[in-house]
Amino acid sequence: MERRFAFVPVKLAAKKTRVVLYGLGAIGIRTAEAVLARSDLKVVGAVDIDPDKIGEDVGELIGGDRIGVAVTDDSAALFQAVEAEVVLHTTSSFFPDIYAQMEGITNAGVDTVSSTEELSYPALQHPELAAKLDALARAKGVTVFGTGVNPGFVMDVLPLVMTGVCQEVTSVQVERIVNASTRRGPLQRKIGSGMSKEEFEDLANGGRMGHVGLVESVALIANGLGWEVDTVEEILEPVIAPKQIVTEHVQVAPGQVAGIHQRAWGIKEGEKRITLELQMYLDAEDPHDAVVLEGTPPIHLRIENGTAGDFATVATLINAIPRVVAAPPGLLTAEQLPIPLWRNG
Amino acid sequence: MERRFAFVPVKLAAKKTRVVLYGLGAIGIRTAEAVLARSDLKVVGAVDIDPDKIGEDVGELIGGDRIGVAVTDDSAALFQAVEAEVVLHTTSSFFPDIYAQMEGITNAGVDTVSSTEELSYPALQHPELAAKLDALARAKGVTVFGTGVNPGFVMDVLPLVMTGVCQEVTSVQVERIVNASTRRGPLQRKIGSGMSKEEFEDLANGGRMGHVGLVESVALIANGLGWEVDTVEEILEPVIAPKQIVTEHVQVAPGQVAGIHQRAWGIKEGEKRITLELQMYLDAEDPHDAVVLEGTPPIHLRIENGTAGDFATVATLINAIPRVVAAPPGLLTAEQLPIPLWRNG
Repeated sequence: MERRFAFVPVKLAAKKTRVVLYGLGAIGIRTAEAVLARSDLKVVGAVDIDPDKIGEDVGELIGGDRIGVAVTDDSAALFQAVEAEVVLHTTSSFFPDIYAQMEGITNAGVDTVSSTEELSYPALQHPELAAKLDALARAKGVTVFGTGVNPGFVMDVLPLVMTGVCQEVTSVQVERIVNASTRRGPLQRKIGSGMSKEEFEDLANGGRMGHVGLVESVALIANGLGWEVDTVEEILEPVIAPKQIVTEHVQVAPGQVAGIHQRAWGIKEGEKRITLELQMYLDAEDPHDAVVLEGTPPIHLRIENGTAGDFATVATLINAIPRVVAAPPGLLTAEQLPIPLWRNG
Repeated sequence: MERRFAFVPVKLAAKKTRVVLYGLGAIGIRTAEAVLARSDLKVVGAVDIDPDKIGEDVGELIGGDRIGVAVTDDSAALFQAVEAEVVLHTTSSFFPDIYAQMEGITNAGVDTVSSTEELSYPALQHPELAAKLDALARAKGVTVFGTGVNPGFVMDVLPLVMTGVCQEVTSVQVERIVNASTRRGPLQRKIGSGMSKEEFEDLANGGRMGHVGLVESVALIANGLGWEVDTVEEILEPVIAPKQIVTEHVQVAPGQVAGIHQRAWGIKEGEKRITLELQMYLDAEDPHDAVVLEGTPPIHLRIENGTAGDFATVATLINAIPRVVAAPPGLLTAEQLPIPLWRNG
């Protein structure tokens, strides 16, 4: 049996969405490249505090042609001068560090998609700030949304989506193993490669080491599933190199740190209902993402080689734009938005 | 480093959602069981045309205690008598067959979650009916949504969600291999087990054989990604048993049909951008679901043993209820709703 149908897709709006790039660090520059490659987005402004970047043309900063948009450090003046619809915000991992930036953007009446890891579930560590920004966003009729590949997808949204085919779920386990040898130099250093164990632990105890967002992923899952989890716990340990490791960017002696082993749990009355395990270290074998749901039916999902971080993070920001622009106002989390997807444009 | 946070989930509404079960066949009965097991749903009515079921109590029909809700074949009278919020509709795979039922439910001002396979992308085969029902739903302020595990999740929503981490996607391939020996007798017969090749092909050419919804999955992906696919094609072939197969329900001689091999494509200017392949036959080896995205980054996802059909189909219906009740009016498809998820209740 063979059948054939003509297909007529739903027409999309032809109008370009007007974007401001806020932050032109490593992720911001990659975001700029990806935005400029799309025909449905138009860069109308760019903000950064780096004196070397202020005044430069965004197109030239990414090594391309001039686009007639210069970087400014005066976001208030920018929002007065241009009619922006959405900000792609990539400045810091921590919500308190970016609160004033969010306030400025929101007061200007512009929606935000942010890579700030703690925004993926802002109420966990900063309930007062989250309530305040949510109220401001509603008052101004704008949407604020934090996303990314992790947090924002692999260890929270993907397991939540998979529960959609379950009649009951009793536990959620996610494992992500990243071979840091294949990643950028800054990431290799960020995970402590080449440090002594003591140096790593000092930084970790000061909150300056490790992946930001794992506890927010636990909270996003717990809240989405309506489990009455009472505690979120996290442990960060170094992975110690058993032998010398040399990459393009770092040299690690045996006994030095090769990366991180970070785990977080959502606990209900002493029972671990959610277990997230992130290993990110040099020469890690068998890199992958895995989701295991115990329930009816059980689910065993695996992504071979994992979901590559840099391209994927930028993709989640850009792919969120149409959903965030169309969303109701407020400081939203992933379960309040339509399914993530890439759209040709 | 160890950290611990108290977690306070967002409070859910305590009010039960009032549900009407519309259709009490195999899937409807399983749906009834699952609804009655939940504390956040209340069955306020049940509709079926089977004379053996009319007048029976729904609780007793599933082998449990009376719940005080008798099955009726008069849906109009039922909707006048009770204040229903949502219908769980499980009567037929084909949109034209259920149009009058949808019209009745919609005119009564009640939302619908339906297992009707063609509703997962109703505009592909029935654009006029889809436009008519969409207009009626908007006029009445109600939401109509068709879902399931396939179509509705494994071969359409899941690949769409995975594109959310991609900066570009050039092709989508999904493979689903189901070992029908582990499934119910009706399913084993539905895929042609024990038929001759000729009998199978006669039924297939008459449109009475094969999985319903594969072409709708192609359309849902194509529309979601905004690809200007122009043609959707489908081929259905029998899988022939190489040796005798005996299950609890059927006996298949060598040379007879053991199941289906069905493929569908989304084609743009002669190029296959979307490839869906479904194999469902007795003694199929290595059952699994797999999604392969070519793009940036590429994605290789695999669900070991696949997503079990019966529990998962019922789960998708029930899990859709909060999203459909909260959704704007219209005949919606999956990309217009928030992420699917199970919620404790």
